[in-house]
Amino acid sequence: MSKPLEGVYAALTTPFAGDEIAADKLRDNVQKYNRTDLAGYLVLGSTGESVSLTDGESLQLVEAVVAAAAPEKKILVGTARESTKGTIDFTNSLAGRGIAAALVRPPSYFKSKMTREALKTHYLAVAEASKLPVLIYNMPQNTGISLEPQLIIDLAPHPNIVGLKESSGSLAFLGEVVREVPDRFHYFLGSGHVIYPGLEMGACGAILAVANAAPEMSAEIFRLFKAGKKDEARRLQLDLVPLNKALMEVYGIAGLKYAQDLRGYYGGPARLPLLPVGDQAKRDIAALLKKMGL
Amino acid sequence: MSKPLEGVYAALTTPFAGDEIAADKLRDNVQKYNRTDLAGYLVLGSTGESVSLTDGESLQLVEAVVAAAAPEKKILVGTARESTKGTIDFTNSLAGRGIAAALVRPPSYFKSKMTREALKTHYLAVAEASKLPVLIYNMPQNTGISLEPQLIIDLAPHPNIVGLKESSGSLAFLGEVVREVPDRFHYFLGSGHVIYPGLEMGACGAILAVANAAPEMSAEIFRLFKAGKKDEARRLQLDLVPLNKALMEVYGIAGLKYAQDLRGYYGGPARLPLLPVGDQAKRDIAALLKKMGL
Amino acid sequence: MSKPLEGVYAALTTPFAGDEIAADKLRDNVQKYNRTDLAGYLVLGSTGESVSLTDGESLQLVEAVVAAAAPEKKILVGTARESTKGTIDFTNSLAGRGIAAALVRPPSYFKSKMTREALKTHYLAVAEASKLPVLIYNMPQNTGISLEPQLIIDLAPHPNIVGLKESSGSLAFLGEVVREVPDRFHYFLGSGHVIYPGLEMGACGAILAVANAAPEMSAEIFRLFKAGKKDEARRLQLDLVPLNKALMEVYGIAGLKYAQDLRGYYGGPARLPLLPVGDQAKRDIAALLKKMGL
Amino acid sequence: MSKPLEGVYAALTTPFAGDEIAADKLRDNVQKYNRTDLAGYLVLGSTGESVSLTDGESLQLVEAVVAAAAPEKKILVGTARESTKGTIDFTNSLAGRGIAAALVRPPSYFKSKMTREALKTHYLAVAEASKLPVLIYNMPQNTGISLEPQLIIDLAPHPNIVGLKESSGSLAFLGEVVREVPDRFHYFLGSGHVIYPGLEMGACGAILAVANAAPEMSAEIFRLFKAGKKDEARRLQLDLVPLNKALMEVYGIAGLKYAQDLRGYYGGPARLPLLPVGDQAKRDIAALLKKMGL
Repeated sequence: MSKPLEGVYAALTTPFAGDEIAADKLRDNVQKYNRTDLAGYLVLGSTGESVSLTDGESLQLVEAVVAAAAPEKKILVGTARESTKGTIDFTNSLAGRGIAAALVRPPSYFKSKMTREALKTHYLAVAEASKLPVLIYNMPQNTGISLEPQLIIDLAPHPNIVGLKESSGSLAFLGEVVREVPDRFHYFLGSGHVIYPGLEMGACGAILAVANAAPEMSAEIFRLFKAGKKDEARRLQLDLVPLNKALMEVYGIAGLKYAQDLRGYYGGPARLPLLPVGDQAKRDIAALLKKMGL
Repeated sequence: MSKPLEGVYAALTTPFAGDEIAADKLRDNVQKYNRTDLAGYLVLGSTGESVSLTDGESLQLVEAVVAAAAPEKKILVGTARESTKGTIDFTNSLAGRGIAAALVRPPSYFKSKMTREALKTHYLAVAEASKLPVLIYNMPQNTGISLEPQLIIDLAPHPNIVGLKESSGSLAFLGEVVREVPDRFHYFLGSGHVIYPGLEMGACGAILAVANAAPEMSAEIFRLFKAGKKDEARRLQLDLVPLNKALMEVYGIAGLKYAQDLRGYYGGPARLPLLPVGDQAKRDIAALLKKMGL
Repeated sequence: MSKPLEGVYAALTTPFAGDEIAADKLRDNVQKYNRTDLAGYLVLGSTGESVSLTDGESLQLVEAVVAAAAPEKKILVGTARESTKGTIDFTNSLAGRGIAAALVRPPSYFKSKMTREALKTHYLAVAEASKLPVLIYNMPQNTGISLEPQLIIDLAPHPNIVGLKESSGSLAFLGEVVREVPDRFHYFLGSGHVIYPGLEMGACGAILAVANAAPEMSAEIFRLFKAGKKDEARRLQLDLVPLNKALMEVYGIAGLKYAQDLRGYYGGPARLPLLPVGDQAKRDIAALLKKMGL
Repeated sequence: MSKPLEGVYAALTTPFAGDEIAADKLRDNVQKYNRTDLAGYLVLGSTGESVSLTDGESLQLVEAVVAAAAPEKKILVGTARESTKGTIDFTNSLAGRGIAAALVRPPSYFKSKMTREALKTHYLAVAEASKLPVLIYNMPQNTGISLEPQLIIDLAPHPNIVGLKESSGSLAFLGEVVREVPDRFHYFLGSGHVIYPGLEMGACGAILAVANAAPEMSAEIFRLFKAGKKDEARRLQLDLVPLNKALMEVYGIAGLKYAQDLRGYYGGPARLPLLPVGDQAKRDIAALLKKMGL
């Protein structure tokens, strides 16, 4: 039983040239990714350094991706702000552009007050008012907020909530959620380490930073899984782990962008406060890509 | 040896009426606070729900306070954004308005990459480019980032860095920093639990949320300390603890605003995702204020 | 390729009668478990409240299990103490009793000093001196120490280190470790939420608290996986999640023991500081077991 | 109003010679400390590596200190075990030796179950059964358990609970507790960074690891405070901070022991898993002591 948004998405990086965004480079990247089996793109995710962008820059980037994406590619956009009102306003400013869903991470500044009740109130208000379908986003590494499986189960019946991106990578979380939500609910994996076992347990796809540097491999794991070639899927998954580890945990966005540069996309610099990668990191990343035949 | 910015500041709440900010109510509050011994005001701090405001709303609030503050009151503004560029741009958009200093909390979304080096690079870039003097802001409860004492010591010599607001309330932190920074450096306490012992150990003032509800008491602890009346200062400090605990930890900003309402200021609702306080909380807060004779 | 210790083990609870251990009740339990497809037993694990036992009590419990276990059942024992010397001494006091391996959690009291180097030194010293084969134990929930995948990879080549029990339940951890260790290395899952996907990705078994209450189901997931009946294994895995959640996370050891009582084993009380479960918890657990047909 | 146990105590290190404890060296150290103004000694504290000792070793060390301490020196002993029963049994095994109080850290292995109710039940059971007066011990750095101020307030009325050692160093904690407990309650500081401000706010003494290396300075801060020489007390407090930082946070127990060696006491090695300090650390510690004139 396939779902409308299923598949593997790249959580796109944001190209910068000097101090400014480089929307044309993003367009070029997307045109190259159009040739892969990726299901689509997430614009303005964590990997897109969305927290470092103004609303104006954000809008330009969305428009660039909308313009460049092949017709069959679905577009997701990260639209969270710290307030409920700000989240709704920004989300709705993007309506009418063919965006498949808005990905909404939880407010996180007032951590100690983000009780299950506060988060439920927030997400229901957003879902109610949003002109775009809503994907919940669990990203404890960056937000310091761990959504509870029960919160997801409580929110899932809302007709405008279409799924979850779960980036902690916990399959225990998946195990608690996956049978308690409606069939139409999309469970997206947000960690490149567990794509295959997550699909095996009931996820319908993944939204991945590593797919900026390795889009073919990321999409291929999904294809093999759907084709029932589980042993091959597992092997490819394990092949992907060292690259995902290096780019996501060790070197981060600046390292991922360097890997994009090496692979013929535009990576370029990250925006401060993210520091550039050093020479040793560059050598490590180059060696790793070479070893993987990329 | 007194310092130019020393004393106790209120970290002002932001009044809302329905969905919108109510700058006129902020003006009224400030005119009432003008009659107290507060040294001045912090606009757009954590307590001001700054993360829940647009740039346009932020500017209106700053202008309201600038217009309403008595001439001897100093004005501080929270100006941090997640990117270095965004922080500099917003800070400099406020130049030329008589603001005494910009309070800058660290970027915190990319937690795992906010190494000492990244934070140092960020703060030095901000200090270098900022048209306002800079106060560093340590607020681990909200940011999930604990600045290290050594980072403060490393940054303190920069001529445009004039001090620190330290909201973890750790006097161990103060003890490590206070003799290693230039004499001109302002060490502000950010916790209403430790004003007196912090002053005793070398802090020059405090920037406090609780001062919205109890401005006289907050300022009086400073006055008594300066007058050498240490026993009275300590007693008043201990009197303040239960109120500070209730408003800061237990009930948070929505509770603080309710206490303002009871004390004749405009508190009003917080903006979602912060939930309103319930009836029991209201009774507790009212009882506490009554017991304290406020 | 099957491994000598592979399969599913019960991490046995420790029966108490009043203030004292009840070794006879443990013997009875083991005799019942002997009739299941469990591969064997872990004595003195976290679930066995080993930290609440004296050395003398510990030894009695080991002897009871050795005496009661069917010949084909393998016996593992938790033998960690906070010091390297204490760990070695206690481990070696159990030699010569037919124990298959010692499970060794890391020292954790001096958390800030448990660097990768300190942990490596500790485990190598234990492995070197131990008369029993050693299983490393990652249990961050209880120890506050997260072993790094790289530490496991560094330790795995030692001839007396035969594997790992990984209780955080992270398949990302598994993904980083499983191809970097020798073929003979046993990777045991320690979370009942992820048995099937963990086996799918290369684990060779599991050591589970929930197997005290549901030994047949726990062992059956392994059997189905080995028989290539993956859909059935996945379904049974998802069936197990709510029970595992209730007994491991919500109610803990006291709840697990109550479930044992209901299922015809001896559970009995936990030792203080673990509180008994309340009446509502008992009803919940009974209802859950009934719903599962247990 | 002075309290019977008030003053500054050294939290004694445990001397080892090779693999064994060296009780004679502990006796020598205590005889030297007898000549200082320390109020007494804590045996088997965190600094004493108590978690790395057997019960037999622990008893020998207590007996050595009891034999060596000058008559006016009070003796405290750390007696916690993970179970309530184990704590009571070990505490009572020390009765009748002239020990002033037992210091009891909370059980911490089953972290997620150590609710306020579980901790209250544990401490009340220990207080009820203990033949020694009980001091509660808050040590979140090592235990991963933060006792709440309200728990202390709830426990303080018990007639066999005589006080608290609070090692997080939070004066906010002190501010919440100090006026809500009976006058007879001893509030001991456990952090060498905040002795003076803590005394100023109502603590009656301190139990300090750094007092192994700098007993005179530690005791002198207390003496100056009691004599009303507050400026001198503050200066000495700030002088102590860099040494306390180096020995407690940076280098830990192995570093503290090296500092003892340099100052004419027996420090010697720590027991594994604590690693020895390296050559650079030794040079740093020596330079720091020299700079302080010790």
